[in-house]
Amino acid sequence: MGIAGSGWLLGMVLLLGILCAESKYMVYNTSAGIVAGKINVHLVPHTHDDVGWLKTVDQYYVGSNNSIQGACVQNVLDSMVTALLADKNRKFIYVEQAFFQRWWRDQSEQIQSIVKEFVRSGQLEFINGGMCMHDEASPHYIDMIDQTTLGHRFIKEEFGITPRIGWQIDPFGHSAVQAYLLGAEVGFDSFFFGRIDYQDRTKRKNEKSLEVIWQGSKSLGSSAQIFAGAFPENYEPPSGFYFEVNADSPIVQDNIELFDYNVHERVNDFVAAAISQANITRTNHIMWTMGTDFRYQYALTWYRNLDKLIHYVNKDGRVNALYSTPSIYTDAKYAASKSWPLKTEDYFPYADRINAYWTGYFSSRPALKRYVRSMSGYYLAARQLEFFKGRSDSGPNTDSLADALAIAQHHDAVTGTEKQHVANDYAKRLSIGYSEAEKVVASSLACLVNSKSSNGCENGDTTTNFQQCPLLNITYCPASEVDLSHGKNLVVVVYNSLGWKREDVIRFPVVNEDVVVHDSEGKEVESQIVPTVDAYIDLRDYYVRAYLGSKPNDAPKYWLAFTVSVPPLGFSTYTISTSKRTGTGSTKSSISKYWSSENSAIEVGQGNIKLTISATQGNIINYVNSGKLIEESVEQSFSYYTGFNGSNDKPPLIPQGSVTVIQGPLITEVHQQINPWIFQTTRLYKEKEHVEVEFIVGPVPIDDGLGKEVATQITTSLKSDKTFYTDSNGRDFIKRIRDFRTDWDLEVNQPIAGNYYPINLGIYIQDSEKEFSVLVDRSLGGSSIVDGQVELMLHRRLLLDDSRGVDEALNETDCVLKDCRGLTIQGKYYYRIDPLGEGAKWRRSFGQEIYSPLLLAFTEEDGDNWMSSHTSTFSGIASSYSLPDSVAVITLQELVDGKALLRLAHLYEIGEDSVRSVMTKVELKKLFLGKKIAKVTEMSLSANQGRAEMEKKRLVWEVEGHSGENPKVARGGPVDPKKLVVELAPMEIRTFVIDFNHPSYRRRFDS
Amino acid sequence: MGIAGSGWLLGMVLLLGILCAESKYMVYNTSAGIVAGKINVHLVPHTHDDVGWLKTVDQYYVGSNNSIQGACVQNVLDSMVTALLADKNRKFIYVEQAFFQRWWRDQSEQIQSIVKEFVRSGQLEFINGGMCMHDEASPHYIDMIDQTTLGHRFIKEEFGITPRIGWQIDPFGHSAVQAYLLGAEVGFDSFFFGRIDYQDRTKRKNEKSLEVIWQGSKSLGSSAQIFAGAFPENYEPPSGFYFEVNADSPIVQDNIELFDYNVHERVNDFVAAAISQANITRTNHIMWTMGTDFRYQYALTWYRNLDKLIHYVNKDGRVNALYSTPSIYTDAKYAASKSWPLKTEDYFPYADRINAYWTGYFSSRPALKRYVRSMSGYYLAARQLEFFKGRSDSGPNTDSLADALAIAQHHDAVTGTEKQHVANDYAKRLSIGYSEAEKVVASSLACLVNSKSSNGCENGDTTTNFQQCPLLNITYCPASEVDLSHGKNLVVVVYNSLGWKREDVIRFPVVNEDVVVHDSEGKEVESQIVPTVDAYIDLRDYYVRAYLGSKPNDAPKYWLAFTVSVPPLGFSTYTISTSKRTGTGSTKSSISKYWSSENSAIEVGQGNIKLTISATQGNIINYVNSGKLIEESVEQSFSYYTGFNGSNDKPPLIPQGSVTVIQGPLITEVHQQINPWIFQTTRLYKEKEHVEVEFIVGPVPIDDGLGKEVATQITTSLKSDKTFYTDSNGRDFIKRIRDFRTDWDLEVNQPIAGNYYPINLGIYIQDSEKEFSVLVDRSLGGSSIVDGQVELMLHRRLLLDDSRGVDEALNETDCVLKDCRGLTIQGKYYYRIDPLGEGAKWRRSFGQEIYSPLLLAFTEEDGDNWMSSHTSTFSGIASSYSLPDSVAVITLQELVDGKALLRLAHLYEIGEDSVRSVMTKVELKKLFLGKKIAKVTEMSLSANQGRAEMEKKRLVWEVEGHSGENPKVARGGPVDPKKLVVELAPMEIRTFVIDFNHPSYRRRFDS
Repeated sequence: MGIAGSGWLLGMVLLLGILCAESKYMVYNTSAGIVAGKINVHLVPHTHDDVGWLKTVDQYYVGSNNSIQGACVQNVLDSMVTALLADKNRKFIYVEQAFFQRWWRDQSEQIQSIVKEFVRSGQLEFINGGMCMHDEASPHYIDMIDQTTLGHRFIKEEFGITPRIGWQIDPFGHSAVQAYLLGAEVGFDSFFFGRIDYQDRTKRKNEKSLEVIWQGSKSLGSSAQIFAGAFPENYEPPSGFYFEVNADSPIVQDNIELFDYNVHERVNDFVAAAISQANITRTNHIMWTMGTDFRYQYALTWYRNLDKLIHYVNKDGRVNALYSTPSIYTDAKYAASKSWPLKTEDYFPYADRINAYWTGYFSSRPALKRYVRSMSGYYLAARQLEFFKGRSDSGPNTDSLADALAIAQHHDAVTGTEKQHVANDYAKRLSIGYSEAEKVVASSLACLVNSKSSNGCENGDTTTNFQQCPLLNITYCPASEVDLSHGKNLVVVVYNSLGWKREDVIRFPVVNEDVVVHDSEGKEVESQIVPTVDAYIDLRDYYVRAYLGSKPNDAPKYWLAFTVSVPPLGFSTYTISTSKRTGTGSTKSSISKYWSSENSAIEVGQGNIKLTISATQGNIINYVNSGKLIEESVEQSFSYYTGFNGSNDKPPLIPQGSVTVIQGPLITEVHQQINPWIFQTTRLYKEKEHVEVEFIVGPVPIDDGLGKEVATQITTSLKSDKTFYTDSNGRDFIKRIRDFRTDWDLEVNQPIAGNYYPINLGIYIQDSEKEFSVLVDRSLGGSSIVDGQVELMLHRRLLLDDSRGVDEALNETDCVLKDCRGLTIQGKYYYRIDPLGEGAKWRRSFGQEIYSPLLLAFTEEDGDNWMSSHTSTFSGIASSYSLPDSVAVITLQELVDGKALLRLAHLYEIGEDSVRSVMTKVELKKLFLGKKIAKVTEMSLSANQGRAEMEKKRLVWEVEGHSGENPKVARGGPVDPKKLVVELAPMEIRTFVIDFNHPSYRRRFDS
Repeated sequence: MGIAGSGWLLGMVLLLGILCAESKYMVYNTSAGIVAGKINVHLVPHTHDDVGWLKTVDQYYVGSNNSIQGACVQNVLDSMVTALLADKNRKFIYVEQAFFQRWWRDQSEQIQSIVKEFVRSGQLEFINGGMCMHDEASPHYIDMIDQTTLGHRFIKEEFGITPRIGWQIDPFGHSAVQAYLLGAEVGFDSFFFGRIDYQDRTKRKNEKSLEVIWQGSKSLGSSAQIFAGAFPENYEPPSGFYFEVNADSPIVQDNIELFDYNVHERVNDFVAAAISQANITRTNHIMWTMGTDFRYQYALTWYRNLDKLIHYVNKDGRVNALYSTPSIYTDAKYAASKSWPLKTEDYFPYADRINAYWTGYFSSRPALKRYVRSMSGYYLAARQLEFFKGRSDSGPNTDSLADALAIAQHHDAVTGTEKQHVANDYAKRLSIGYSEAEKVVASSLACLVNSKSSNGCENGDTTTNFQQCPLLNITYCPASEVDLSHGKNLVVVVYNSLGWKREDVIRFPVVNEDVVVHDSEGKEVESQIVPTVDAYIDLRDYYVRAYLGSKPNDAPKYWLAFTVSVPPLGFSTYTISTSKRTGTGSTKSSISKYWSSENSAIEVGQGNIKLTISATQGNIINYVNSGKLIEESVEQSFSYYTGFNGSNDKPPLIPQGSVTVIQGPLITEVHQQINPWIFQTTRLYKEKEHVEVEFIVGPVPIDDGLGKEVATQITTSLKSDKTFYTDSNGRDFIKRIRDFRTDWDLEVNQPIAGNYYPINLGIYIQDSEKEFSVLVDRSLGGSSIVDGQVELMLHRRLLLDDSRGVDEALNETDCVLKDCRGLTIQGKYYYRIDPLGEGAKWRRSFGQEIYSPLLLAFTEEDGDNWMSSHTSTFSGIASSYSLPDSVAVITLQELVDGKALLRLAHLYEIGEDSVRSVMTKVELKKLFLGKKIAKVTEMSLSANQGRAEMEKKRLVWEVEGHSGENPKVARGGPVDPKKLVVELAPMEIRTFVIDFNHPSYRRRFDS
């Protein structure tokens, strides 16, 4: 047996310390701590383990697929154990919990207890501690919080430990949200990273300002600042100090009986490298990141040499070398009682050298980015429904989607910087996670509609078969594509995960054109039949075959659209039947086709917004919001950049052929085939004051041998004066000035790529009168390259690798049997013009609606008695209650222990809106309808420690040139346990764990 | 401290077995033994660690210079310990003791005791057990014995263990001497190897005859046969079963919670590979060599997968997989009680595929090969002198030379197949070893000459400063190049390490031409002054600067030659002084110069041998031995093959210019400048009946862009009928037939390279009347490509790598500052023609003299009283005694424990010589003059076990088609402890450890 029967072994176990150690019978003194008055070289043994990149996360873990990359995280963690056991002075940090958890699950209790002791003693320190080292450009802040929470709570539960340090060493630029929200608000004492602009780095080295105090939030100011250190080069050891198996750095050869003894040379190399770094660093503490991607596969090879270096360098005495961790380093920095330069805003965009801006990835793999974003919103809603029904540990539950989403935030996942097969792996995981979450949603809705109680799921029958339509975006929804002509009704339950009542137009394909819609009270609802468009039928046919592996049924000829009204955290029910039987029926849309030869301008729109479109050019030429008395010329166009080796010229794509206008009572659509591979729908809702643009881009042709980056430009006459605003991970907006950086005098080499920023929520420009805002449905890159214009990059298809390691061109291709096509993207963006200072409301409220679309669930009924036999409307909160306009429930989740995790987010920055940028309140008693709150504990953002405890512990850093008290920042006060009212200041997110007294609340461990 | 203060560790040490193990909390059943009735797959975890190849031995050990090759033997052995501790079923074999000893010296006693337990229990098995896995083409058998002894005795002393198995998995062809001498005579039960001719392999696979009984010796026949197995492919695992860190074989992924679970596929792969091998193997036991060059750097990566394979394959049940070793495999083969095909002769030459003969290396690096050979003879002599004086453990002693020579036998050392810097490392080690041995020799001689006793070194003063001249071959000997005109005498002590009295001409440079030589008794000895030649002065000037780093003094104008007579294992003393003072003086040589325009034949030679040389062609055209009444036309010429991409054409190099004849009373020399880079001296000694040819070849020009392989051809009229004879490692001669193999029908693709064989002693051809023998001074390649002709390859300089891993062309270049030149080779070969059947005497006796040249030590004296004040002649054996002509003392050495190690070798094969190929006797009492033998223990060849014990243990294998008793083979009988007479049958080598009673014999541990 592998581990059994080793009786003879017991006689030898006392030798363990020596056994697993460096075997030379030489004792190295590795016990050095910090020595005052010397340069202290903090040697931080670390491995950087991408949660998927060139290989999938599982392949990295088990070490398969090594022909792509030799990497096996299991080796790292296995060999770490023996190496740390052998010398208690040795230290190691571990970061990526997705890997650690895989390993942990495989360990015996004995190994687990050894590792727990490592963690307790500080030999092993969890750093960062999220499931992955998430990207900082492409993820939404809610995903960043969720994935960090998942890792942090695991560490807390297993080890009772709270990570202290942020460690974003590899992401390609660094966001303000990372610094203040996922740094300070998580309770971190410091935050380290490797990649900042090469020009910025040079300046910071000269000024010894790589290490700063970073205030990432205007609203939270000094209350959410953090010590933030950029590394002098990268996250690798100084040149010549790599000690992986087979690495070619000179090992320390200290055996005088053998040739090539080199202790003196190696000590000199070490001292020289230390002095060089000390010369650009404040205080006499420097950190060496002793490791890199997937290293420490045989940890002893590193420790053997580090032991020797510490021993001989300290014998030499010129500098002091010690085993350290980022925590020890941080404490040493703190103890030095220096003040540090202040840093605001963020570290985007990132160029690692001249002409090498890493801004393309903001848009890479737009389908994956959209999938991640839509799953993120779905996960939020699914957890609410899981909460209403009660979590099942044995499943189905939302855990698998949680894991998949967490991994997808990795800086080579949603970023699009991974190999294709790895991107497929993320999608597969999301798909598996979705399938399980879909069951949770369906059964929760079934329970709720069948519940005897109208305010929850009590004894509800869950047999009702609710179907959902994840491929609705390509007009594929088998659940709605049912023939109602023989007497069946289609029942649609519409769930709203926002805390506000919501009115919105929903749409889905139907096969009958003579249908009628009724609401929960049996009233007929105005509806509109919109003809399906060829472009979508092609998309549907190809991608259903690509994704589901079988040809879909014939495409439905119509979309049905109608307005729904849904209570907060609740649902409404609508039935669809044939109008022959039950009512007046839908209004068919009128269809008008305009040829470009016609020299006319077409005005469309039935609500406040009217657009005038040039039939000649196919462009919008005028935008009027009669409600707000705004008129503005808006020209929208497409163009593309050619890939590497191409130029910055971007030929405009002139729309050709016809413009088709579809009009009806609710929706107006303008259809344009821009060119053979771009189709666009411009959509106006009668009741909405924004323009929705839906695009189909692809397959991007490459038969000219050129890769293409497809962008759209929306051009206004606003005098935006080089200035635009982009969000940080969907939260704070940061002012951007073209060809300018706040922190240094920018040498402009790339006027396009160097002005691109990541966009998750939106981008806006303004002048003295107006604001022009564009909101997006996924993460993408955008800019304002020309005053008055906003540019979004929608799709990229490239033919050359960028020589940054992936070794694969970003040429996404789908295949149906042998019919392979470049990936086609479908998506939306939204724009609107407001008077100056009034745009925030739309950006914040509608932005939240984009993130959390209404969730549709379909079922059929044979008769007409659905409404009488089911709960047809439901709200999880008090019926009289609605959350403030400025607040979103970004987490409502039942924890494994039966408690609830609640996160409330104030959506507005300070000063952003004259009305809403103020302290606001949420009444918890009304939020948890029918449940008795026993205890509310405010937590750190990642919910791994009490907020009060965190506040007490966090190091308070001093900003250079700033003496005295920090200005008081508005923050919500403590929650009175009686009143249970939560205050939220602008941009504040507050996290609570809530204990309920309700007897029906179980502590369940189903499995 | 690295290993101290781990108090908390103690609480956890009970977990050791699990800790260091595969960490998955899954128990694998790895306990499988052999299962009858199934295919048993013996998994043999092994690492093949070249004792120098692309990196030096020390670089491989410590893991430096990894940019050349990622390899660190320290990692292998360190990680082996933890891996074996974790599961007692896991096994490992280790081969190369040069590495193991380095590691062992570094280990604490605790680790040592753990490893001793591994060895005791059989988890770790020492296989082969020499210092290196020696080559089988280039080494001399004495070196093979010495290096094996060094390793075997270490293993015996430290572990009490005797390796059972030969493991020559990588050498490029396999020799008869390896099989019978370093296999059977060492006591091995079997012998495995990886490389045999691809045509041979194919046939053997078809016939299931990869595994054979190999009788390597005609003379020793079945008494020295061994089970010998060639691997089906190489010494690596089956394709897809490599599990090194970062290897790209599919790991066994058995975690169903992760993607890519592949247990079924991997088990199927395993079973398929096993069946495939079983189909070409007799019995149901097959061996898989699970490892390759420098693998197991992190041993756990292999064991983790092997554990799983054993577990799942055995669960599957189609075949049985087990941890095994070559011993277990051998015993299983033996237990199967099969008989096996008989194999005789050897496995040379080796081609790994069509047109890829590995025969060039027989001649690669001729300077290194010569250095190794000359050090080998020196080491033999030095140990004798060390024995006479008494060994000093604290040094100087011969240990360092022993180590250097041992390592130099590696199959990428003396072979010449290593990188240049590694070749330099071997030379450096030899040089260091020589320097120390030189001190031993000098002080022993000093002791002996100053000893009061004439039969040993007793209380001898060792201050006499004896100098030796290792660069004598390039006419550099500072010790002899002293001006004697001012009254000094040069004293030359001449040591003879053979067991016979010996008369020979010695020569060394002198600065005075008017010198006289006196022998021990004061009698003047005839001597001859030979003018130095320009070619040698150039050589001396360049290479002294290259090797010693400084310009030598002016070149002496003369060589002094005279005949010495030296007793067996003893010395004589000669003094040189100016003839003005002390005698008649040397005879100056006459010098005659013949130009190629002269149409004449020059006859030279003053003894029995006369050569006629064509002045026109510069060739020898007639050879006459008047003593033996032999006359034969002998034409000797040079040519070269061009390197890869060249053809087999070899343009003859026609001598140009003059022929110079130097004649004197002792020596006749014919000097020819063959071309600008070949100079040749043909030398006849009046008293000798062979021709000595001394060549200088180089720098081989490469300015035509072509590498060149320089060969010499000696062409006679013998009707040799495609047949020639070459020695096996300097011992048995094997019959070779051109374009023919005994074991299979050769498909001839390379009529030159495919007929080359390694030569260490010599090569001969014969016809019905005569034998033509050529003896060499080092290992080289040779053949008889044309009937009557012998061809030797003398030098190679190539411009292309052979794509076998070295990644460096064999273009040896020396530099003096910036003056870099292709390496020039100086050397000798010897030839002679005998009546048929009479050549062996010369080949054997003179061959031994070539191996053991007279050792010259010089000192000066001011007066003329050396002979009276010193012991001027000495013999280590009884003065009346001489060893039989057929016997050489190939080892006489004082062991660390004060005992003596003695090896006596019968030099003749059975039937080789009508007189000498018979049983002969050595009287030990006379051999050890003045020492009382207490006990004589006959040992195995490598002196690690009693011979009797070995005979009892060795497995006796059955040869196919051969029933009944093996024919009785002549072997010397037991040594009567009273008579102490050793019998030696033809080709027998007997090894003894001798205890002395002599009180002066110390058990000394000086250090």
